[in-house]
Amino acid sequence: MSKKNIKDFIVSNQEVYLPSLSLDCVIFGFHEDQLKVLLLKMKNAREWCLPGGFIFKDEDVDDAVKRVLKERTGLSEIFLQQFRVFGKPKRSDPNFHRRILKKDGIRLGRHHWLFRRFVTIGYYALVEYSHVNAKPDNFSELCSWRDVEDLPRLMMDHKKIVNSALHTLQLHLGYHPVGYNLLPKKFTMPQLQKLYETILKKKLDRRNFQRKILSYRILKRLKEVKKGGAHKAPFLYSFDLGSYRKALQEGLGAW
Amino acid sequence: MSKKNIKDFIVSNQEVYLPSLSLDCVIFGFHEDQLKVLLLKMKNAREWCLPGGFIFKDEDVDDAVKRVLKERTGLSEIFLQQFRVFGKPKRSDPNFHRRILKKDGIRLGRHHWLFRRFVTIGYYALVEYSHVNAKPDNFSELCSWRDVEDLPRLMMDHKKIVNSALHTLQLHLGYHPVGYNLLPKKFTMPQLQKLYETILKKKLDRRNFQRKILSYRILKRLKEVKKGGAHKAPFLYSFDLGSYRKALQEGLGAW
Repeated sequence: MSKKNIKDFIVSNQEVYLPSLSLDCVIFGFHEDQLKVLLLKMKNAREWCLPGGFIFKDEDVDDAVKRVLKERTGLSEIFLQQFRVFGKPKRSDPNFHRRILKKDGIRLGRHHWLFRRFVTIGYYALVEYSHVNAKPDNFSELCSWRDVEDLPRLMMDHKKIVNSALHTLQLHLGYHPVGYNLLPKKFTMPQLQKLYETILKKKLDRRNFQRKILSYRILKRLKEVKKGGAHKAPFLYSFDLGSYRKALQEGLGAW
Repeated sequence: MSKKNIKDFIVSNQEVYLPSLSLDCVIFGFHEDQLKVLLLKMKNAREWCLPGGFIFKDEDVDDAVKRVLKERTGLSEIFLQQFRVFGKPKRSDPNFHRRILKKDGIRLGRHHWLFRRFVTIGYYALVEYSHVNAKPDNFSELCSWRDVEDLPRLMMDHKKIVNSALHTLQLHLGYHPVGYNLLPKKFTMPQLQKLYETILKKKLDRRNFQRKILSYRILKRLKEVKKGGAHKAPFLYSFDLGSYRKALQEGLGAW
């Protein structure tokens, strides 16, 4: 996008989007035993940021987030969860955006829409790492996966948003089934355990894990086994989608 | 408040509040084995509505909701949970508000702030029924408890918001401790079970309930018993606040 186009884009935004409201997505993926989060490297700045966007004046908020995710990842079927609104008055720093735009020679009035306070709606998404086709937006030069344990410098309160999403995900492990969108279609019990351990940041006992996860009745043991290892070939599992979705709706700790 | 004051109030609102954003509170209380919700009966209309409000331009969103709750209930220490943003573009009907104001002789331009689209942040609150000193706001003539099973006609999507809060509360029963803010300080096991049954809308087995709730380790059995009944006096319990708060933070289904 040329500088003139970017300026036109920003100036016209205030006509088409709801004022004061934005959304930010913490997109988690799982790869090589690491929990990753999809981030954008901003143009003209050292900081990275979360994929996010604004809501058209006549758009459903939940549709807006799907649009943003589709643009950044190429995916349209995503497990998505609204988890928290971030609404501190000082969460954004107008000077930060002003400095970045100035480097492109773009100057906007101090009362411009973009410099006002934004309340942001936080969503977290679980996606299959290998399916994502990551694309930067107009204000970023790079869109890539970063290890959640080793985040780069993030703008505004985006680090807090990532941490809050991670805490929510950890809490959700206790009453939601998790894994369908993070693991390949067929997986072994050790792979599933590793995913849980990575999210929880702690080791789990193998037998207890297996007993508890099987008690949820969301897994199907397949007839095939995983081949090629040096040890006894482990069983392969997949999720029973019917029970999985029911458990998502009703919770696993249901009375 | 006089009509002129109401008009001044509405007209000045657009200067002081964030545009497009509101909040609504589903305040639950438990009384005589019924789950109640605190509602406002609107002036000049048949409909009732949820206590709610707007956010000052320099106010933290979480402070705004505490302010609203304090005004409506007199309480400042409330268990409060953000649970969902309601963001459908057609959720409000500008004509509805226009008609109500017209009955008071108040006419506002069609582009007035109040008639624009609002995205609302839903909170649910759990309060001790007997501690609430319910007060209507400027637009309502009554603030009172209604049985959640027998709601009056509600404006806009407020019925949907109540149902969504109730569903969230039911889900939270499976991994959050619930009860501290809804029951008196000392209670019997049957009282606690009745609260769970009322929220879940189903009967629970007495022994299973007792075993499961005790396994959470959030209860203290007191030395006293409840007096005055015809049967054997039942034990009294209270919540162990340290464990209760830890369980709220970490979840009860923790791995």
